[in-house]
Amino acid sequence: MIKKYALLQKSINQRLEAFFKHKTNEATGISPFLGKLVKEKRNFVMAGGKRIRPVLFYIGYLMGDGKDKKAALDASICIELIHNYLLVHDDIIDQDTLRRGKPTLHITYKTLIKNLSSSPEHLGTSLAIVGGDILAMYGYEALSNATFPDNKKLQAIKVLNKILSDVTIGQDLDILYASKKKVTIQEILRVAEYKTAKYTIEGPLKLGATLAGANKGTLKVISDYALPLGIAFQIHDDILGMFGDKKRTGKSSDSDIKQHKQNLLLLYAKEHSRGDQKKTLRGAKLTTSGIERVKKIVKDTGSLDHAQALSRQLVEQSKGAIRKSSASKEVKEFLVELADYIIARKS
Amino acid sequence: MIKKYALLQKSINQRLEAFFKHKTNEATGISPFLGKLVKEKRNFVMAGGKRIRPVLFYIGYLMGDGKDKKAALDASICIELIHNYLLVHDDIIDQDTLRRGKPTLHITYKTLIKNLSSSPEHLGTSLAIVGGDILAMYGYEALSNATFPDNKKLQAIKVLNKILSDVTIGQDLDILYASKKKVTIQEILRVAEYKTAKYTIEGPLKLGATLAGANKGTLKVISDYALPLGIAFQIHDDILGMFGDKKRTGKSSDSDIKQHKQNLLLLYAKEHSRGDQKKTLRGAKLTTSGIERVKKIVKDTGSLDHAQALSRQLVEQSKGAIRKSSASKEVKEFLVELADYIIARKS
Repeated sequence: MIKKYALLQKSINQRLEAFFKHKTNEATGISPFLGKLVKEKRNFVMAGGKRIRPVLFYIGYLMGDGKDKKAALDASICIELIHNYLLVHDDIIDQDTLRRGKPTLHITYKTLIKNLSSSPEHLGTSLAIVGGDILAMYGYEALSNATFPDNKKLQAIKVLNKILSDVTIGQDLDILYASKKKVTIQEILRVAEYKTAKYTIEGPLKLGATLAGANKGTLKVISDYALPLGIAFQIHDDILGMFGDKKRTGKSSDSDIKQHKQNLLLLYAKEHSRGDQKKTLRGAKLTTSGIERVKKIVKDTGSLDHAQALSRQLVEQSKGAIRKSSASKEVKEFLVELADYIIARKS
Repeated sequence: MIKKYALLQKSINQRLEAFFKHKTNEATGISPFLGKLVKEKRNFVMAGGKRIRPVLFYIGYLMGDGKDKKAALDASICIELIHNYLLVHDDIIDQDTLRRGKPTLHITYKTLIKNLSSSPEHLGTSLAIVGGDILAMYGYEALSNATFPDNKKLQAIKVLNKILSDVTIGQDLDILYASKKKVTIQEILRVAEYKTAKYTIEGPLKLGATLAGANKGTLKVISDYALPLGIAFQIHDDILGMFGDKKRTGKSSDSDIKQHKQNLLLLYAKEHSRGDQKKTLRGAKLTTSGIERVKKIVKDTGSLDHAQALSRQLVEQSKGAIRKSSASKEVKEFLVELADYIIARKS
């Protein structure tokens, strides 16, 4: 991990803690139960997470020549809150029980309410749907209340709307493709573009840059850097999801295979597999040995190598875009290191 | 229905149609499937609904002496979009299949995807969770893009955040109380305060007033008018839910009884019931005759009379507040008529 990144991460976490402390007290004042619900949101958010979006928000602010760095860090948590809103809903959609090595919010809420209700499962999920909605509102609130001029904040809110538009397009396509029998690599890359590249890299950078009043040239550099890097990020995530260390990723590994979700690794393997391999990929049982056989085919067909090469190539493209830009030396160094880190990370 | 109300309703519906036409075209351009999803959101929103929130948004704008009435009507759809976002999630939470006499969005999406997937139920719900999230973003977008000065819009966005904070507090308390064995009338009225009074009446009026740059005095009048009326609105809704004409309300009637959800009618009846009645209320079977017996007890204990008297009293309080204010004659007439209508409506 880059040293500067770790420092930013720490500052962001402090601000998230302060935000949730305030919200927990406020809610407890209305009802102790509400306080508990907010406290569990805090635990969910603070259980881990790379904070890549608020970090990029801050870097975007620097790229736009913003001067009030403290205020930018304060505002940056908006995008982490929005991200956690989507994670909470995503965990319900994917029926995941673990996130960052801890129970997902609907599971936590189910446990919280189990002595009260005869249908804790449904109520836990219900509270988590509303819980996600509350985190969304927190995100808009953190941005609306930031100490920046109103016109800048309004521009930033429009960017936030666009980020949410992009990511929900990605989610809808993801849900569609998860249920389609035949999905193309092009379709999978499109989901990665909306759900990861625009959402995780481009959006946060643009958000910070907009708050700083960046010009069109800077926004163009951001897109040129962000879009290839975002695809690489997603590919690396898929690799980690299949071959990563569960203890380090904190996610139920193999979940793509188990959910029969298509990703680049599986699709490329399918396209390059021969008779027996094809059969295994189609009919793979969800046993440990079945999953191991699928992983072996992903390696044997060269799909893993291909994915790694592609993500390296995209990262080079991304680095090239930022290197030739007029960004400051500090920003260039940071974003180049970040790009390398993104396809080297273990979690 | 008040004539002016009907005219406003029509203007708002036209604007909603235009909004969805634009969004459907945009989504279809990315993928026909996405276009279909938006089209179904349009059908959900346009299936009915009183549009009380955008109407009040507009009246609030007049109360704040706003001059650009057309722009206010354009912006007013933001709160209807937000409302539909919450309805979509609410229908999932309440496991309702009907809304405005048509299938709820998760049911529509289930049908849409049923030939594609082996788990259409879960995918339909997943698409509707994301679908709600998209409607939320639409709401913020409609407000951010309105043709008002940035500082006014930013103030209004803060009011929108507060509206969402209030209503989600109401929802969380509602979910909690639905699972608690003993709920007090005070607790039920508190849910009505957050989930209906602040959200349905006070919030929209304040939103419009804020966009017009209203002063504190006007905002105070709004609260004095809105809060009692909102409680009356909820009580009348409970009465309609139990004794209303299903064809006119478009909702599965008896759903509060069926879900063992507490409301003022049931609680008051419980408190004023005698031996046999008490037993029936506790153990009421969810058969048609069981539900009819519960309804009879609500009448026999005087609970229905009590609820009607209370809502009339609250409406008088509300009308008093607006009558003695410095609002224009036009606004006063409208809000007084609206208050009467709210406890006279059949749907």
